[in-house]
Amino acid sequence: MNTSISTSNCDVISSDKVEGTAVYNNAGEKLGTIDNLVIDKRSGQVRYAVLEFGGFLGMGTDRYPLPWSMLSYDTDRDGYVVPIDKSRLDEAPRYPLADPSPFTTDASYGQRVNSFYGY
Amino acid sequence: MNTSISTSNCDVISSDKVEGTAVYNNAGEKLGTIDNLVIDKRSGQVRYAVLEFGGFLGMGTDRYPLPWSMLSYDTDRDGYVVPIDKSRLDEAPRYPLADPSPFTTDASYGQRVNSFYGY
Repeated sequence: MNTSISTSNCDVISSDKVEGTAVYNNAGEKLGTIDNLVIDKRSGQVRYAVLEFGGFLGMGTDRYPLPWSMLSYDTDRDGYVVPIDKSRLDEAPRYPLADPSPFTTDASYGQRVNSFYGY
Repeated sequence: MNTSISTSNCDVISSDKVEGTAVYNNAGEKLGTIDNLVIDKRSGQVRYAVLEFGGFLGMGTDRYPLPWSMLSYDTDRDGYVVPIDKSRLDEAPRYPLADPSPFTTDASYGQRVNSFYGY
């Protein structure tokens, strides 16, 4: 039972493998899937993974940016795990699927996300 | 004529905006488009942008990983610019579209890419 990836040739992952990957919480509940990553242009550092969650056939679906360092990969579940209760997401920073990314319109949005999750 | 993005709310970009973006060289020739990003799992650092280039209707198309720090964004062209002659790509590390990513099968592949481009 090896749940960690230790070989050096698995140290990297393609963005298109991350996108669409399921996200679970510690209780094993599926929270949603990763829609996209938010990257610092200058440094190339991934800052946030944006969780897509809720709604039906795209209606009412919201996007929840999560600090990248919150995510750990679980090979057994073949998905990411984050320490977030489902009820906590009710209060989490989010934006509707149809809206433009607040990261491009609101300079303090990232800080708001970080402070909500205690980063 | 402001060719650099300086406002703090444009410091980040979404992975799905990078994917599909055109890549030019300094001579203004289009080299291809970004297909995906290769990310260090542990640190979340983007290591490579994978350029898709060549072929016809997907046949004969190859993928060329480029060190992320080689890319600069040109707002006038609405694409990335890299200092690579087209002829240089003939010798550059690449893999066929249909092949699995060598980053996951060959631990030294990243080093080969870096050393080809002098990183």
